[in-house]
Amino acid sequence: MGPLGDLEGLRSLMRRAAQAAGATVVGEAFHRYTPHGVTGVLLLEESHFSVHTWPEAAYAALDFYTCGALEPEPAARLVAQGVAAQRVSFLEVHRGLPEAEGALAMSRRGSW
Amino acid sequence: MGPLGDLEGLRSLMRRAAQAAGATVVGEAFHRYTPHGVTGVLLLEESHFSVHTWPEAAYAALDFYTCGALEPEPAARLVAQGVAAQRVSFLEVHRGLPEAEGALAMSRRGSW
Repeated sequence: MGPLGDLEGLRSLMRRAAQAAGATVVGEAFHRYTPHGVTGVLLLEESHFSVHTWPEAAYAALDFYTCGALEPEPAARLVAQGVAAQRVSFLEVHRGLPEAEGALAMSRRGSW
Repeated sequence: MGPLGDLEGLRSLMRRAAQAAGATVVGEAFHRYTPHGVTGVLLLEESHFSVHTWPEAAYAALDFYTCGALEPEPAARLVAQGVAAQRVSFLEVHRGLPEAEGALAMSRRGSW
């Protein structure tokens, strides 16, 4: 079935990603779609990580929403490696109060 | 405590938002922070909706991640109204396979 269809594998991978980012998990929900695909979210002290997979398209969409000093990139790299991603496109968005510098702006876009 | 600190109120509001969008809820996780703030996610057949609140700053960050024909805007408007938002800033991001037109691009930004 491959890593994108494996709910338990993805749950474990997302938890390791949270650990890699230094985040604290405070809740979670995962669901397997019929006929294929998995969706899941970890609630964190520092916001959330989510994953949605379309194994039939060899595609996964991930959000690494962090706050405070947490950097999402170590988590993203761990997950990409864990599912053997051949290509990663990312978009980094700064969000927060409208008064905050750069709030709700696309700050970085790229791929690796 | 106000709507941004009310976990059960936010859960109910997010569920009504899912209904307003025509989405099907397949899972959920909510958490109340100490001393204040709520975080929560609804897993949907069509991806997810999330909410994070900072009542002390009168601020909430919401994601309405939809796929297929679902439009997120009715859900966003319902939640904004439900928490009596005085200002809403939004950023719309198209995502999907890199081959897809406009994938991972910021398509619209604004406020109301």
